[in-house]
Amino acid sequence: MVKLRFDKGDGLLPAIAQDYASGQVLMLAYINEEAWRKTLETGKAHYWSRSRNKLWLKGESSNHIQLIKEILVDCDEDTVVFRVEQLGGAACHKGYASCFFRTVSRDGLQVNQDPVFDPQEVYNK
Amino acid sequence: MVKLRFDKGDGLLPAIAQDYASGQVLMLAYINEEAWRKTLETGKAHYWSRSRNKLWLKGESSNHIQLIKEILVDCDEDTVVFRVEQLGGAACHKGYASCFFRTVSRDGLQVNQDPVFDPQEVYNK
Repeated sequence: MVKLRFDKGDGLLPAIAQDYASGQVLMLAYINEEAWRKTLETGKAHYWSRSRNKLWLKGESSNHIQLIKEILVDCDEDTVVFRVEQLGGAACHKGYASCFFRTVSRDGLQVNQDPVFDPQEVYNK
Repeated sequence: MVKLRFDKGDGLLPAIAQDYASGQVLMLAYINEEAWRKTLETGKAHYWSRSRNKLWLKGESSNHIQLIKEILVDCDEDTVVFRVEQLGGAACHKGYASCFFRTVSRDGLQVNQDPVFDPQEVYNK
């Protein structure tokens, strides 16, 4: 298994999810060593949820799984890019394709995309 | 100024630099409130160097400045994407266009791009 510098981030390192086809940055979340191993073993993006303090298979609630197409590692071995196929077409729990659905403008933040799904329908079934 | 949740990251939040034209993810670094303000004010990416413990204008040594074209903010307001024009064509101090110049393969890490410059020439002038 490729070694990352988990020691540098108190056991957690940032993982950037990027759409493999479009190049759109979808989200950033954190991985610990277990999430890293699970991602490599299964080909599905796993993260460590800091809010729930548990291993998190992305899409476990929404079925919006991220299939790993390629993984890039940075020069310091303390950040990775998961290049993924985003099932369901949306990474963000707010229903947008990307968590980065707002752009800084002179007047504050402007929404830059239309939602793909209604979070009420997906998470409150 | 757009407010970010610096309280969530002990004063530091991750900023992803992405090439505005190609969509390539160039690097990830950290910003504090001062780096965020300087970036917004100057239109040039500023970060907080964790290794040198100081404000860091990206390119201050190499002249490889990142001109801000657009800034995206995520749903939790704790991560940003700087969409940039990378002067000099390389973001990585090791001479590559992107810090993510290695791909995970069965045999470990494989270099996935050619270097743009020789770090010896740029940093040891």
